[in-house]
Amino acid sequence: MTTASIEPIDPSDASAITNWDLQSDVVVVGLGCAGACATIDAAEHGADVVVLEAAATGGGTSAMSGGLIYLGGGTPIQEACGFTDTPEAMAAFLEAACGPVADVGKVAAYCERSIEHFDWLVGHGVPFEPRFCAEPDREPHDDSGLVFSGGESSWPFTEIAPPAPRGHHPRFPDAAGGFLMQRLSDAVAATGATVVTDAVAMQLIVDDGAVVGIAADVDGRRKHVRARSGVVLAAGGFTFNHDMVRRHCPQALRPNVPIGTQFDDGRAIRMGQGVGAATVGMEHIEVGLPIGPPHSIVRGILVNGQGERFINEDTYAGRLGRTSLLDQDGHMYFVHSDKTFAVNIVGYKAKWVADAPAELEAEIGFPAGSLTATLDRYNRFATNGADPDFHKAPEWVVPLIPPYGVVDMTVEHSFYATFTLGGLRTNVDGAVLTPAGTAVPGLYAAGRTTAGIGGAGYVSGISLGDGTFFGRRAGTSAATDRRV
Amino acid sequence: MTTASIEPIDPSDASAITNWDLQSDVVVVGLGCAGACATIDAAEHGADVVVLEAAATGGGTSAMSGGLIYLGGGTPIQEACGFTDTPEAMAAFLEAACGPVADVGKVAAYCERSIEHFDWLVGHGVPFEPRFCAEPDREPHDDSGLVFSGGESSWPFTEIAPPAPRGHHPRFPDAAGGFLMQRLSDAVAATGATVVTDAVAMQLIVDDGAVVGIAADVDGRRKHVRARSGVVLAAGGFTFNHDMVRRHCPQALRPNVPIGTQFDDGRAIRMGQGVGAATVGMEHIEVGLPIGPPHSIVRGILVNGQGERFINEDTYAGRLGRTSLLDQDGHMYFVHSDKTFAVNIVGYKAKWVADAPAELEAEIGFPAGSLTATLDRYNRFATNGADPDFHKAPEWVVPLIPPYGVVDMTVEHSFYATFTLGGLRTNVDGAVLTPAGTAVPGLYAAGRTTAGIGGAGYVSGISLGDGTFFGRRAGTSAATDRRV
Repeated sequence: MTTASIEPIDPSDASAITNWDLQSDVVVVGLGCAGACATIDAAEHGADVVVLEAAATGGGTSAMSGGLIYLGGGTPIQEACGFTDTPEAMAAFLEAACGPVADVGKVAAYCERSIEHFDWLVGHGVPFEPRFCAEPDREPHDDSGLVFSGGESSWPFTEIAPPAPRGHHPRFPDAAGGFLMQRLSDAVAATGATVVTDAVAMQLIVDDGAVVGIAADVDGRRKHVRARSGVVLAAGGFTFNHDMVRRHCPQALRPNVPIGTQFDDGRAIRMGQGVGAATVGMEHIEVGLPIGPPHSIVRGILVNGQGERFINEDTYAGRLGRTSLLDQDGHMYFVHSDKTFAVNIVGYKAKWVADAPAELEAEIGFPAGSLTATLDRYNRFATNGADPDFHKAPEWVVPLIPPYGVVDMTVEHSFYATFTLGGLRTNVDGAVLTPAGTAVPGLYAAGRTTAGIGGAGYVSGISLGDGTFFGRRAGTSAATDRRV
Repeated sequence: MTTASIEPIDPSDASAITNWDLQSDVVVVGLGCAGACATIDAAEHGADVVVLEAAATGGGTSAMSGGLIYLGGGTPIQEACGFTDTPEAMAAFLEAACGPVADVGKVAAYCERSIEHFDWLVGHGVPFEPRFCAEPDREPHDDSGLVFSGGESSWPFTEIAPPAPRGHHPRFPDAAGGFLMQRLSDAVAATGATVVTDAVAMQLIVDDGAVVGIAADVDGRRKHVRARSGVVLAAGGFTFNHDMVRRHCPQALRPNVPIGTQFDDGRAIRMGQGVGAATVGMEHIEVGLPIGPPHSIVRGILVNGQGERFINEDTYAGRLGRTSLLDQDGHMYFVHSDKTFAVNIVGYKAKWVADAPAELEAEIGFPAGSLTATLDRYNRFATNGADPDFHKAPEWVVPLIPPYGVVDMTVEHSFYATFTLGGLRTNVDGAVLTPAGTAVPGLYAAGRTTAGIGGAGYVSGISLGDGTFFGRRAGTSAATDRRV
């Protein structure tokens, strides 16, 4: 964790620049998925592009990810796997899952153009295998191309839109983020764009209110890079800026697995703020709390610190984590029938085992009678495969019999993965906006530097999906908006 | 797949170079794990280092990997998880698992210095969590730090050395290769080394028999880079050079998942050959064939095209794959009790289901009576939890009862992941050797450009373990061998 400042970073004025060290049409800051796609589309629209990457190598958090890309509306992979989908169903799901404050204009554009974006990815070297993997919420262990990645097939989303799997997994075994970034990097290389590594963007450069360049420390020396047409900020979020997290989303300090790189330090967001940009959703975080694979583990039940159920266990891992951390103060316990608790590859182990729920209540510190009542009620309906309280799918509803095992899934003792969701406000074409809704001339942004389509919610595949899709738009806009 | 040539690449002579575009003490080719560690240790030994990376971003195949690093002999993580290990046990295991032609001198150095290497990695920003994950053969789903990754606890290795888990998984959920390379890249950046991307090494430059530099195409323009002290080739293997694969290890053309990047094109190996270097083990390949997670799936049995067992099902996934492809012509079938085949998250499904083995024999094309006899014999001993034929661990040995399901795991219908294991011959300090065993002055190599410690065999974690360990040595040697 760095302890960088949390304040906006003032720009410097172009009148003070006596020498431009580098000049191009478009300068892209950051070579994760958003920066790579911005570079490719800017270059393919005729722009000369310079990319500034803070690390010694590009890839960013994208290269560390599972590689899932949220695409739908009837992609060739969905069709080949026998799933029907429409842009409307996809949009209805995303507005609900990423809501209640999702950017509906961006959601609409994202869903309507999703098949085109799929084709673009394939055309730029990212292959997908037409094979469905039935284990949800994470990248397939093999190179299967399609998976449920947001709880589409579990309650409440089953009541909101016809479920379809939309997590598209590039043709690489298991976590495919590194593979994805290799392929996008190859596509970047093919454009002839200049990539400068070890280049930390420090300060935007403005001329009469418009962004015309950026100052960066390259190998420790200050360089001034002119952007004749536009600057695209695609430098990640602020997960690793401890002070910004404490100010905007302090709950993110409790989980033990922050996801990102040291360069997710919020600097790009603060540079945007320094030229008048608004931010959106800085309080929102993703909290991933996997309880599978295998998904069949959800036959057990989850209870809070009062020994009561509060969610359908078969929901998306991100919804589980957020609900536990934000609504239940990070108190969550997984209760299963110890004898039939066959396999949990995650490595969770029961911390407490007993035949009598009352014994567990005393040991764990639940109110007397609470877990007993919870199990009585759950088992009564489970005999008929029903879960009227939280709507877990019937296939996972079976009576739980003693001895019971309980896994400690409180935030201090389990695996909660977090990253920030908020960032600069942008329009559907990637232009950075002021609080009044006007564009900051010459400034564009994409990926986690922006709030993207979210929203308080999240589904797996949206970071890469939103980053690549709106990265392309930001690159195109930066290349063309001011072209004479 | 590229169709690059398979011939050695002749060097050019320094006398023809009129202008050096870049000069440094050490030039490292490739910024995967081996190149990063070579750079760090060369720089920490006082050398000025230039890194040439062919892609637009570094990371290479390392960043696409699961991130397991094979370390042992009693590391702090092994000790914290309650496992005893010694350098001797580690060496005995590796010589057997990577044998029969493993480089015993390298194995010895690797095992004796493994704890020091662990400390070095931690000191250079690669953290490990002291938590053991019981699911073997792959990176843990969470950020657990230790896992069995080579079949140490299954036959035949249980008879060769006291088993200890040695797969060390950096503190990042699931596939941690991207995270590892981010951390190593940060360490590279801290050294002040110059990283040049989009720089494809084309030809070594020699002066009186010694390597003194390298010609590279940088953004498509030929540049000459002088190495006052040495050149380290760490540019990957030849998995993506179709012609080299066909010549040296044609069996690798059958599996459908080659692991690597387009820059694993064998060029570094061929440049080494052009200055007289020997190669080792070019015929050897890794063939990963996961049948879990969950590992409990190994309660079923594997049979060949004759309906006969040929291996203990609980062995390492790489041993399964190699045995199937190389010894059984890629014919492998997984037979399980359909009713108790609870969960296979890999997504395998039975292609054939029947109560009578004879029916399966006819449908699949096994010899009449073969599977019937195999199941009779297996079940007879399994009643007592024994497997005298192939020594599967008793915990996985249970009688298989009808109905039977059979998964098609033939190479054309299943998931076989491959990469090449052979490469330049090097000594224990990373110097590239001629067939006579003498060093090529000024030339060093590490990672998949070399044969490393192998060997016909492989265990998960050796690519990153060998690459980082001998990468460091190659960097140190390149920095110091010719220093005046």
